[in-house]
Amino acid sequence: MISKNFSSFYFAFFLLPFLFQSIHGATQNKINGAPNIVILFADDLGYGDLGAFGHPTIHTPNLDRMAAEGMKLTQFYVPATVCTPSRAALVTGRYPVRSGMCSDQRAVLFPDSEGGLPASELTIAEILKEQGYATACLGKWHLGHLPPYLPTRHGFDYYFGIPYSNDMSPRQNDWEGAQKFPEIPLMEGEKVIDNEPDQGLLTRRYTEKAIGFMRENQDQPFFVYLPYTFPHVPLYASPEFKGASRRGLYGDVVEEIDWSVGEIMNFLKTNGLAENTLVLFTSDNGPWLVMQNRGGSAGLFHEGKGTAWEGGVREPALAWWPGVIPAGSVSMALASTLDFLPTAAALAGAELPKGHVLDGYNLMPQLKQEKESVREAMFIYLGQTLYAVRKGPWKMHFVTMSKRYQPDKRVVKTHDPPLLFNVEEDPGEQHNLAEEHPDIITELTRLAEQHLNSIDAPPTLLNARIGE
Amino acid sequence: MISKNFSSFYFAFFLLPFLFQSIHGATQNKINGAPNIVILFADDLGYGDLGAFGHPTIHTPNLDRMAAEGMKLTQFYVPATVCTPSRAALVTGRYPVRSGMCSDQRAVLFPDSEGGLPASELTIAEILKEQGYATACLGKWHLGHLPPYLPTRHGFDYYFGIPYSNDMSPRQNDWEGAQKFPEIPLMEGEKVIDNEPDQGLLTRRYTEKAIGFMRENQDQPFFVYLPYTFPHVPLYASPEFKGASRRGLYGDVVEEIDWSVGEIMNFLKTNGLAENTLVLFTSDNGPWLVMQNRGGSAGLFHEGKGTAWEGGVREPALAWWPGVIPAGSVSMALASTLDFLPTAAALAGAELPKGHVLDGYNLMPQLKQEKESVREAMFIYLGQTLYAVRKGPWKMHFVTMSKRYQPDKRVVKTHDPPLLFNVEEDPGEQHNLAEEHPDIITELTRLAEQHLNSIDAPPTLLNARIGE
Repeated sequence: MISKNFSSFYFAFFLLPFLFQSIHGATQNKINGAPNIVILFADDLGYGDLGAFGHPTIHTPNLDRMAAEGMKLTQFYVPATVCTPSRAALVTGRYPVRSGMCSDQRAVLFPDSEGGLPASELTIAEILKEQGYATACLGKWHLGHLPPYLPTRHGFDYYFGIPYSNDMSPRQNDWEGAQKFPEIPLMEGEKVIDNEPDQGLLTRRYTEKAIGFMRENQDQPFFVYLPYTFPHVPLYASPEFKGASRRGLYGDVVEEIDWSVGEIMNFLKTNGLAENTLVLFTSDNGPWLVMQNRGGSAGLFHEGKGTAWEGGVREPALAWWPGVIPAGSVSMALASTLDFLPTAAALAGAELPKGHVLDGYNLMPQLKQEKESVREAMFIYLGQTLYAVRKGPWKMHFVTMSKRYQPDKRVVKTHDPPLLFNVEEDPGEQHNLAEEHPDIITELTRLAEQHLNSIDAPPTLLNARIGE
Repeated sequence: MISKNFSSFYFAFFLLPFLFQSIHGATQNKINGAPNIVILFADDLGYGDLGAFGHPTIHTPNLDRMAAEGMKLTQFYVPATVCTPSRAALVTGRYPVRSGMCSDQRAVLFPDSEGGLPASELTIAEILKEQGYATACLGKWHLGHLPPYLPTRHGFDYYFGIPYSNDMSPRQNDWEGAQKFPEIPLMEGEKVIDNEPDQGLLTRRYTEKAIGFMRENQDQPFFVYLPYTFPHVPLYASPEFKGASRRGLYGDVVEEIDWSVGEIMNFLKTNGLAENTLVLFTSDNGPWLVMQNRGGSAGLFHEGKGTAWEGGVREPALAWWPGVIPAGSVSMALASTLDFLPTAAALAGAELPKGHVLDGYNLMPQLKQEKESVREAMFIYLGQTLYAVRKGPWKMHFVTMSKRYQPDKRVVKTHDPPLLFNVEEDPGEQHNLAEEHPDIITELTRLAEQHLNSIDAPPTLLNARIGE
């Protein structure tokens, strides 16, 4: 009896776990191969708009859990402060001035724009597709809505979403220019499947499509790029989330994005994919402050979207990969959306064409805490103009744009000497230290010159209008 | 052989855990009795100064862990916005206007003050001592430094610390009044054991004393009140922490407090006491903004210490009690330091004298998530004057004090009608909604009148000077 009991006991306590591990392993069929990569990208979300980043009344349990199970990056930047150039930077790993995807005249692409991301650019999706990844873009593209520029022409097997911002139709906006625009198209692949879709359902539909795509493609590595339409204004939430938050409609919309992130993490966990998937979450630029309560909050940072102050370009960022990225870790080293492409390329084992200029770094050593930092500096543009440089604790502004307190009057000022802030000691950029540190001014000016000299900028592709 | 193996196997896998549990249980000798209570109270710490509350460059892994293992309270208030009245509120559970511990003339006690917390007040320490608790106060008292007012006369078995703020000596301050003050005394019990102690060692010494006290008293329930001297200016860190943070000396000092909190949690865990101890962490008021980088940050809130704006009175707050308070939970309901005494009294099973007026509520149902909320409203004072009322999402200001942008000129304004903000939708108090909501103005005005009618305020005890 004892012997028999022992056997079944042995089986239950020793073999069973191995068996489960084995079953588990069967679904994790790529555990030693190239990992899946999922990029979740909010639109106009402020640094201070998530629970884990200090918002008192927006409840984001899933993003907070992503932080608790992964890494919070607190000095994470986008190199541009509005949609189109910021997205170009993420997708190409290059400052948008290199691809023509920024302009001093028209800051972003509009429905009447003729241009888009040129075919000559190498995208993160193209690199991963080449390595055997299934690739999908679900959401707001904003890198060109005419056929040659759609996601499907840039390495994505599948596209579902709206091709530009959700305020760019006459129904969504009462500014004069918008009245000339068509209704907002919802596209699948290269086909318009709906005009002026119910925006309250977009977050849910993107999420369902993303999960469906991952489910169908779990036997090969997949790349999911999910650029949410929100919390860009106009704000819409599904009936389940409308009125659910304490922070008004803005909070409802962010809480629905949080739900979406939770659904994606749960799918990955439930299907044994979590330990083979890198998930990144951030936003394209800071909060649209002139929208008042319809816009977000940059927390303790100054200003927001459309400026090169920290509020415009410092983003809440999270990285999640159970078993690889230490749970509950915090990285205070510089990092950027520019680094996503090099990170993905390294994970996929891709070799990039010789001589191809990139502005990013493989983040994995930083995410795994093998190295404290992989990035030395950040350059911040408004349009085609370099506004600011960040290196070490220092941020130097050559030019500043202020919007918050005078929404109707953009105040652009050139500074000579530039403004200098220690943004680690003074994150609110309140105390200009230019006089005390002429040496730093010299060093950062030289760095900016080197950077500008490295750029062979093509003409902007954002100014041309259809039919002009 | 099998049988023998099985026995030792059985022992190892089944009995050993029970045995450990039993040993563990032996040290947790109060598991079914009254729990220990530990209150960790920072000085001038801003809402935005901890990692878990969104600071990008202050590294607070222990407080973040306290949040991950416990509850983060994001709408937590102090009823007064400077040291002495805020501490009186915590220690008595009553608005300080009831105890005479606030003044429109002298905002806090100074070394030349004659008064202090009157013997007629019932303190949290007296209540717990009566219930058999060992009680200790380690740190900055600031409720009277003459013998009748010391912690030892207010229910604390043991006191170790400085009796008022760390800038109140001629060595620490160059303002005229301070030149007449004595050196800062470090006291043990009622005895001065050092004059002008090395402030860089205070956080460490308080921590060691607190742990020593808990170790000595672990056979009975204990109450530890640890009001840190910092990050009140002047800032001092121990050699181990000086220069350790990215946020300058202010960050070093906060990171040393974080270390202290970690030491206390580790002690409780290591000694099997964690599951029988409620630990609360918060601050006495918002950041001292006019100190620039030597002061903290209120995050997305407006203004700081010395004002009734959210930045002055909304505090970062954490509650930790493994097994009782759900790990990683967030409470967005109102709560206050006024609630600490009623919570402690309920946990200790104390009956309070009939007719004793309290302004707080037992927080346990909220901390255990049995009830969403226990508190309906908050009244916020500057000195003896009611400045603002909070109820539901609404905050109404009768009077405002602004300091930040004019440190030398305090701007006091009376508002008729009062200012009205929805601080859940607009935490930065930017959009006055008084005109849109006359009904709310009426309701909150009536509530304020009821509150003021309930108060039979004694004369202030903060104005009298020794020898006058």
